Parts: sequence; C-alpha cells; structure tokens
Amino acid sequence: MTKRMEVSGTAFVMSAGMLDQKDAKTTHGLIRGSERFQTLAVIDDKFAGQDAGMVLDGKEKGIPIYPSFAAASEALGLPQYLVIGVATVGGVLPKQFLTTIRMALEKGVSVVNGLHDYLQDHPDLLALAQKSGAQLVDIRKPKKFEDLSFWSEAIYQVDCPIIAVLGMDCAVGKRTTARFIKEACTKNNLNAEMIFTGQTGWMQGAKYGFIFDSTLNDFVSGELSNAIIAAHKNEALDYILLEGQSSLRNPSGPCGAEYLISGNAKHVVLVHEVKKKYFDDHESWGLIPSVESEIALIKAYGSEVIALSLNTSGCSLVEAKAAQQALSKDLGIPVFLPLEEGVEGIIPVLKKLKQ
Amino acid sequence: MTKRMEVSGTAFVMSAGMLDQKDAKTTHGLIRGSERFQTLAVIDDKFAGQDAGMVLDGKEKGIPIYPSFAAASEALGLPQYLVIGVATVGGVLPKQFLTTIRMALEKGVSVVNGLHDYLQDHPDLLALAQKSGAQLVDIRKPKKFEDLSFWSEAIYQVDCPIIAVLGMDCAVGKRTTARFIKEACTKNNLNAEMIFTGQTGWMQGAKYGFIFDSTLNDFVSGELSNAIIAAHKNEALDYILLEGQSSLRNPSGPCGAEYLISGNAKHVVLVHEVKKKYFDDHESWGLIPSVESEIALIKAYGSEVIALSLNTSGCSLVEAKAAQQALSKDLGIPVFLPLEEGVEGIIPVLKKLKQ
Repeated sequence: MTKRMEVSGTAFVMSAGMLDQKDAKTTHGLIRGSERFQTLAVIDDKFAGQDAGMVLDGKEKGIPIYPSFAAASEALGLPQYLVIGVATVGGVLPKQFLTTIRMALEKGVSVVNGLHDYLQDHPDLLALAQKSGAQLVDIRKPKKFEDLSFWSEAIYQVDCPIIAVLGMDCAVGKRTTARFIKEACTKNNLNAEMIFTGQTGWMQGAKYGFIFDSTLNDFVSGELSNAIIAAHKNEALDYILLEGQSSLRNPSGPCGAEYLISGNAKHVVLVHEVKKKYFDDHESWGLIPSVESEIALIKAYGSEVIALSLNTSGCSLVEAKAAQQALSKDLGIPVFLPLEEGVEGIIPVLKKLKQ
Repeated sequence: MTKRMEVSGTAFVMSAGMLDQKDAKTTHGLIRGSERFQTLAVIDDKFAGQDAGMVLDGKEKGIPIYPSFAAASEALGLPQYLVIGVATVGGVLPKQFLTTIRMALEKGVSVVNGLHDYLQDHPDLLALAQKSGAQLVDIRKPKKFEDLSFWSEAIYQVDCPIIAVLGMDCAVGKRTTARFIKEACTKNNLNAEMIFTGQTGWMQGAKYGFIFDSTLNDFVSGELSNAIIAAHKNEALDYILLEGQSSLRNPSGPCGAEYLISGNAKHVVLVHEVKKKYFDDHESWGLIPSVESEIALIKAYGSEVIALSLNTSGCSLVEAKAAQQALSKDLGIPVFLPLEEGVEGIIPVLKKLKQ
C-alpha cells in the first residue's frame, strides 16, 4: 500500500445526506480547505445542486454538490479519490455508503476512509480494489507495532514554544482554532506548524502528526513526541501547535495530560463553547465544568492557559461579545471570537512567549 | 482461538536469566500467586537449582528453578502452558526465548505471551502450533474493533465505592498494593474485586479488566467502565479496586484521568516509592513531583486521596518508619507500609466510605 503521507490528489467527498450534521466534520474540513485533497465535488443527495461552501458557512467555495457518484463523475470526470466524509458514532461504515464505494473501486478510484471499520477488512471491497488497481486507504487503521515510536526525552530539547489547543469538550472547534492561529502566524511572518491528531487534520494536509484515538495507548506519548521532534528538526519553526482531542474531563475519553506532559506543551489555548452545557450534549454524561476549574487543572499539570477561544454556536453577536467581555474580565487572559473577529490578537501573546 | 478468559492451568514460567530484574515482573507476579496458572517451575539458567520464592522474596514457595525447558519437563513432565515471564522495553521478544518457545510448541505446550511482539505474527511459530495443536496466546494483542466497548454513563449507577490504586511512577507496586487491599477485605468479610489493567493482573487470575496499554485509545474509557459495570452487576461487591497504570505525570505515558473520570473513581490510594527520585529512574525524564502536588492534581479532577502506600525499596526499617511518620503528619492521611506491616489499617478507612 502507498504510504499514508503520500496520498494526495483530486477528490469527491461523500456526506450522503449528512452535510448539515456534526458527524460530517471530515467533509466540513475538506470544504474549508486542504493541502492534501483538491475537493472537486461533494456527494450528498439532500443538498444536490447547491454550492458546498454556501450550505456550510454561507460562503461560495466553487464546490458543487451532486446527488450521486455517477452524476458527479459524469459532470466532472473521475477523481483520484473518493473520501468518506463522515465520522459516525462507533466508527461503523454506514450501509448506504457501500454501493458508492463499490462503484468507485470498479472504476479504479481509490477510497479514503477514516472510520474504525476498515475497508481492508471487507473481502469484497479488497477484491474489487485488487482487480482495478484502486487503493483502500484506511487512515484510522492502527500502525504496525514496528512502525510505532516510544516517547523520548529529546522532546525537552525542542526549543520553540509548544502550544496545545485544548477544548472544554469534544467538537468545539480545537482544530479550526489551531488552523486559524497557524494562518495568523503566516500572515505575520511567523512559521508555525500544527501537529495533527485526528483524521481531518491529516485530510487537510498537515505534515506531522498521528491519529490519537486509533493508536494503542502505550504509543500515544511516543507518536506525539516523535511528531513534535520531527517537525522541529525538519522545519525552522517559531511555534508548534498541537491539535487537541476530546477534553481533559470528557468521560468518554479524557485526553490532555499527553499534550501537557509527554508533548511538553507549557502553553495552552483553551476552546470553550459558550452555550454548551453537558459533555457531548448528553445530560446523563454530566455538566461541563467551569473554565476557571479547567485552567486550575491545567495549572496543576504545570502548564499555563494563555488565551481562551470562544465557539459562539447559537449566540447572537451581542451575546458573543458579552461572553467575551465577561470571561476576559473574570479570567484576566485574552478571549477571542475566531469566527466573528479572527485570532489576530494572539500574535502579541505568542511573541511574548519568545521574549 | 480459545477466549482469553478461559485460559488456565499448569505452567512453566520463563525468565531466562532475568529473574532478579524489574523486567521479569510477570514472573514475579506468578511466583507470588495466581488463580489462573499453577506455576510448576521457573526457567532461568542463572538461578537454576534454587527456589523461586527464595530468590524473589526470601520466602520458600515450593517452585523450583530449572536451567531449561528440557530439564524442567524431564523432571516434572510437560505443563499445559509456557508463560513468557518478562516485559522488555518496547515489548520485543528476546531472541533467546525463541528456541524454548519452538521446543514447547513442538511438544504441544501452549505459549502465553504478554509482549507487543505477537507470537501469531511469527509464521514459523504459527505453523508449529497448528501442527501440534498448541495455542499461541498473545494476551497483549489488541481486541478486534467489534469486541471493544464504548464508555457508558451506566458507570454512574455503580453504587459501591470505586477506589483507584494509582502511583507516583510506574513499577512502584500498585498491583501488589491493590492485591493486598483485596486480601485484607476478604479477611474482614468484605467483598472486593480488583479490575486488572495489565497482563500480570490477568495472569494472576483477576476476572474483570482489560490490558490498558494495548487498547486503542478511543476504547480505553469504554473497556474500563465496561469491566467495572460487569463486576458490579455479577458480584455482590462492597468495593471495586482499580489497578492503576504508569502515573498521572510519567512523560512516557501519563495515565490517571481515565480512572478518575471514565471509571468514576472518587477515591484514590496513592503508591509512593520513598527513595525513587526520577521517573522510571532516568534523570533525563525529570524529577517525580511531590506527593502533595499529586494529591492536589487528583483533587483538581474531583477525587480524594484516602491513603498513601509506601514502597520502601532500599530503606532500612528505621528509614521506612520515619518516612511513614513524616508523610502521615504532613498529609494528614493514613500511610501504610504494605510489605512491613500489611494494609489492615485500610479497613476502617474503607468502612467510612460506606457510611
């Protein structure tokens, strides 16, 4: 199989009726921008005929939506890749995707899959791929034992600031915040790299990273430190940003210590969704704790929260600004509204870390 | 393959010259006691002729040490299992073990392996096993996707105290402390179960648990909560003890939040090795923080340290008692010396949790 990092090219992205749902966040990431895939079309029968950027963010992106793979390929010709653009609960491949996957493979189009349900474990798909020469790219498939890295104290030699972008819960916009910070750095002639830790980060083209949730626990710290060390060695970096996963206290999978301790991130940008009350929106999972207590927990690990980034989903602009002001006053740190105002204000905060 | 939980019987345990080293901790666990395996002999050419219990703890255990598999089987006949009794750095199978493994398989003796290097990935061993009908039991081999559990809020319905036995570092005696507490409970007519999270816990016969470090990160919280929920449902338990792994701030693999948050352990027994200064004894990995700061970190997660257990390796009895007194005074919690005095004193502390 081609190495994961070598995959890139033109793509159709399939969201199959789920484009307006959180589960389609892989599709959303590819619509917003990727250096790995050139997204020619989105396949979604529910939104066919519209522009994908308009449906997602109200911004024209020049990415048409087709009702089917057949319709898209008739209009645009075949792409190099078909990307499964959804992350379902439990990572199972939805049945309605299989017909389209088979059609793509028959025509020699490689399929990229970020679910825990691996295409390579479906003998019929494997046979089709072998016949046509298409690839089955299961990006969430765990690496082999011999390809995994152990943690190394060489992380302590990385001499540029390492900043973890952590969240108060999953799906609050950690990756998007990290991407915005990276872009703000570029604009200001600062060289920052984001270490990806999820499939969408990889799909968007991040060069260094690993897929946190499908790594054997013993190797998470090693894969993370290894990616940071490699990025630091190969690029002349001013800052290293770490894409957070889940949250420190989300009960379905607490993450955070790995970034702060194994990744030696002494600085944190914390992402908070103003109107989100319960972990993963389930009342039975429990209340998301206060931002103050999260900052204290991060401090107990020896790291400092340098800024707060707000996800203002469901807020009016007035509410968003009020939340920003109140939190900034209470916490005494800069508070950003990335979607409303950008994150340009992080630049002086970052520059201070280098003084 | 036979299900992992159904494996049990007579065994030779191979430590191959490493019996006096920390890496042989699987062998140490089996010498000290197991409900899963009846250890007939230890195979270790360096200590051949001695009693394994005498070498390990200075206590006769009636387990002879033989220089080779051939010598042991000539004296005692064939066992049902050969257990690889070492955990090497990186989990690679040491070459010197292969000859013995082949010999065992040829004679139809199943081999139990707790390394990340799976026997089933060695075609020659697989062929030998298939020929003789022996099993290759790779206990650290990750479960298949469909056999893994997701976290469930049913954990909040578990109505007996859940106590995590966590450590200030790896290999300080968490499992042993948990086992001692369980035994103290039994003596006092209290029913406690230890949820195992490592291969040695499984080898010693714990009924509920999973192997933390070889679980895909996304499923750690689910496997843990599932084991706790199952133990609570099937047994009439007064207490559930969780075997900790690594430590909250060991950089090579910080663990802890999973127990406190996903496993809902509101109580912690903390294990501290008095004379251990650096994580994993490597100065370059950094200083182990103070016990006070660890208790504060655990509190920031919303859990309480109810007792401290001291590993007094390298201490005289006077030093051990002095450390116990000083820490007890400073921290205001009971401090135990398990090897010197047992952990009987935990019983009133546990009883208080039920009031």
